[in-house]
Amino acid sequence: MPDTIKYLLDESRIPKFWYNLIADLPSPPPPVLHPGTKQPVGPDDLAPLFPMSLIQQEVTTEREVEIPGPVREVYKQWRPTPLFRARRLEQALDTPARIYYKYEGVSPAGSHKPNTAVAQAFYNREAGIRKITTETGAGQWGSALAFAGALFGIQIDVYMVRVSYQQKPYRRALMESYGARCVPSPSNETASGRAILAQRADHPGSLGIAISEAVELAAQRDDTKYALGSVLNHVLLHQTVLGQECVGQMEMADDYPDIVIGCTGGGSNFAGIAFPYLGAQLRGGKAVRIIAVEPSACPSLTRGRYAYDFGDTAHLTPLTKMHTLGSTFTPPGFHAGGLRYHGMAPLVSHVKELGLIEARAYQQTACFAAGVQFARTEGILPAPEANHAVRAAIDEALRCREDGVSRAILFNLCGHGHFDMQAYIDYFSGKLADLEYDEAELAMALAGLPSLG
Amino acid sequence: MPDTIKYLLDESRIPKFWYNLIADLPSPPPPVLHPGTKQPVGPDDLAPLFPMSLIQQEVTTEREVEIPGPVREVYKQWRPTPLFRARRLEQALDTPARIYYKYEGVSPAGSHKPNTAVAQAFYNREAGIRKITTETGAGQWGSALAFAGALFGIQIDVYMVRVSYQQKPYRRALMESYGARCVPSPSNETASGRAILAQRADHPGSLGIAISEAVELAAQRDDTKYALGSVLNHVLLHQTVLGQECVGQMEMADDYPDIVIGCTGGGSNFAGIAFPYLGAQLRGGKAVRIIAVEPSACPSLTRGRYAYDFGDTAHLTPLTKMHTLGSTFTPPGFHAGGLRYHGMAPLVSHVKELGLIEARAYQQTACFAAGVQFARTEGILPAPEANHAVRAAIDEALRCREDGVSRAILFNLCGHGHFDMQAYIDYFSGKLADLEYDEAELAMALAGLPSLG
Repeated sequence: MPDTIKYLLDESRIPKFWYNLIADLPSPPPPVLHPGTKQPVGPDDLAPLFPMSLIQQEVTTEREVEIPGPVREVYKQWRPTPLFRARRLEQALDTPARIYYKYEGVSPAGSHKPNTAVAQAFYNREAGIRKITTETGAGQWGSALAFAGALFGIQIDVYMVRVSYQQKPYRRALMESYGARCVPSPSNETASGRAILAQRADHPGSLGIAISEAVELAAQRDDTKYALGSVLNHVLLHQTVLGQECVGQMEMADDYPDIVIGCTGGGSNFAGIAFPYLGAQLRGGKAVRIIAVEPSACPSLTRGRYAYDFGDTAHLTPLTKMHTLGSTFTPPGFHAGGLRYHGMAPLVSHVKELGLIEARAYQQTACFAAGVQFARTEGILPAPEANHAVRAAIDEALRCREDGVSRAILFNLCGHGHFDMQAYIDYFSGKLADLEYDEAELAMALAGLPSLG
Repeated sequence: MPDTIKYLLDESRIPKFWYNLIADLPSPPPPVLHPGTKQPVGPDDLAPLFPMSLIQQEVTTEREVEIPGPVREVYKQWRPTPLFRARRLEQALDTPARIYYKYEGVSPAGSHKPNTAVAQAFYNREAGIRKITTETGAGQWGSALAFAGALFGIQIDVYMVRVSYQQKPYRRALMESYGARCVPSPSNETASGRAILAQRADHPGSLGIAISEAVELAAQRDDTKYALGSVLNHVLLHQTVLGQECVGQMEMADDYPDIVIGCTGGGSNFAGIAFPYLGAQLRGGKAVRIIAVEPSACPSLTRGRYAYDFGDTAHLTPLTKMHTLGSTFTPPGFHAGGLRYHGMAPLVSHVKELGLIEARAYQQTACFAAGVQFARTEGILPAPEANHAVRAAIDEALRCREDGVSRAILFNLCGHGHFDMQAYIDYFSGKLADLEYDEAELAMALAGLPSLG
């Protein structure tokens, strides 16, 4: 059996700054527009939802944003996270590739999400906020924010997509263990929730609806703000802590990635590992192939339109230009709940349009097969979302074997699968099918994109 | 908010030897007896069940046993594990105590169990064994051995207590993800299982029955051995890797524990943290209070008899002298499944008889209250077993406040609770009651202890 190769940085090497890709881009991303005026929004437009410190991070063009001391202190609980060389997987694949993975599942919530949850809780606390509303799908984000809220003494109200609320009671219980309140969405607590329920009392909910509910409530109270776990610039910014650690760890390995891979739902874990490498390339460093991997059943980057769209179903958010399937698009019920969002982070969409990254989509059974092979060789069971990155890494490693070339492949193992065992049960029992989205529904959702005219 | 204080050793500091407490004890533990002859067993008696290398570790009196290189290599995946100062918990308790905890939940299986699972899989592999049978209750041990079996290419057959098999499908799915076969016990695959099912077709099973099944099968085939996740000397030996790391980490903290705490089911995680400190004390080092914490509903150390007893229900194992509730005792169905065993490790029992350690028992609701307080301050949700140690640590810290004394309290947080969320759901919904064992059943079980006359 090959030796274990783990690259672990000293905690003094937790980055002191988040890295802002915008500073190195050849062109800035298109502005965020006010849905009424269709004019670029200003900080005041966003002030009902976010503390000003986060709004400033949303629009800053500075290359580096200092990480506050108290945030780094909380990061120290599990950061720097380990980077592994997947030697046992390489052996099983009989590949000349050098496969590396960053493992974010060691955080208390089991994923990369606390990287931004802790930061957002800190800034809200600094602004005197007492309550944060948010949405969650599979529950990774909700439990991360619940964890951060407990540490900073902020009440967290999580609007959880109803079908997930019913199917994933254990994720809900984790949030409640941290002291958060978890509400099935659509709910009777908001006008947007009541409007949906009036049409269909047993509506299963969606991330778009849950966002509407959380946004609506935050906008109503001065002591309450809203938090989003992906998509926005400042969320992607916070995740760069993990990619910057990778840079240091790959230096320890005396290697440099040829290929960097992340799965993409809203885009934050992908941006976290990819943007520091993309930035280095833009500043004249080595060219790297960067691959965003998404589910075939919710293929915003590979099949969506690059257009202005709302982030939510009730159209309470500003308009952002992104790869979108349309805010009314409802993806089929595949298991990687964290990847079931109609849009993509505007910044990820922008670099895709600039030709700086590749995107590909996989069906879920191929991803679970990859995840099981990974578990049996590397010993860690990945979350269904992370299985998409594992699949792509294995495919690239197999290509190395075909080509007779050794390439360095780095991917983000963004979370463990301990809360996703039902998906594995379904996979082993043959109940897990590949799912296709409805082409007619996609066409209708795209036809309903907001007009800027 | 207080700063995070984490003590992390370099991977070169993973111990190179396991520590054997027997070398430092004033008297050796009583011998293991053959159930037929009532004479001490020899290595050959155990050879059908274990490879000779592990049998040698079971009986050795050497102070140090070298950890094989390949085992240390696998340990490197998650070891050394972190030691934390629980500053946020201390603040919440307003205590002058210095609380430290060792966190073993960062292992791929989420607990301390891989420390011995990896070692046992290695030695079996060296002996040419192709299959290992074992039992599991809540599933921590079964999933750890499944993980180790996947790495070393050994088929693992896990006999899982039927009620847990039905109530904990996610633990079972984790084992199956690692490629193990998981069978509800009692099963039709063994004579001991069939005998139980003939009496009661819907028998819920017990650890004692599952051990009988696994032992029976291993004894029948040359290429199959048996593995136990606690109780035996060699299992406790392997766990000392974690306590030895604590010694180094407490040195980093420039502190030394006044009190060391572990929860006790079979005794292995407790021994892992306690024995290195106990040994140091026996060799003339500082005296330390060492507290074993068990569930009130299965109180082998605090209410059991110190006597020779079988380890299993069908009486296929040798006789060991230990604190026991009787091999027919069935504890009530509390949630810390890892602590539901009728006996205690002979070595833990022996040091208890020597007056070298204390023992106390807690009801489960008090333990869950402690676990929730811990999660909301320290950010990690403990396994129900670990909540017993958390409860004792909090109580000792509160005593420090009463006494106006600062003491250093070290406890083992042996696993995370991500597979135990139903227990937390029951706790929050008020369904989780304190449970008493049946005094009449205990009396009967004790009356049935084997006679040595």
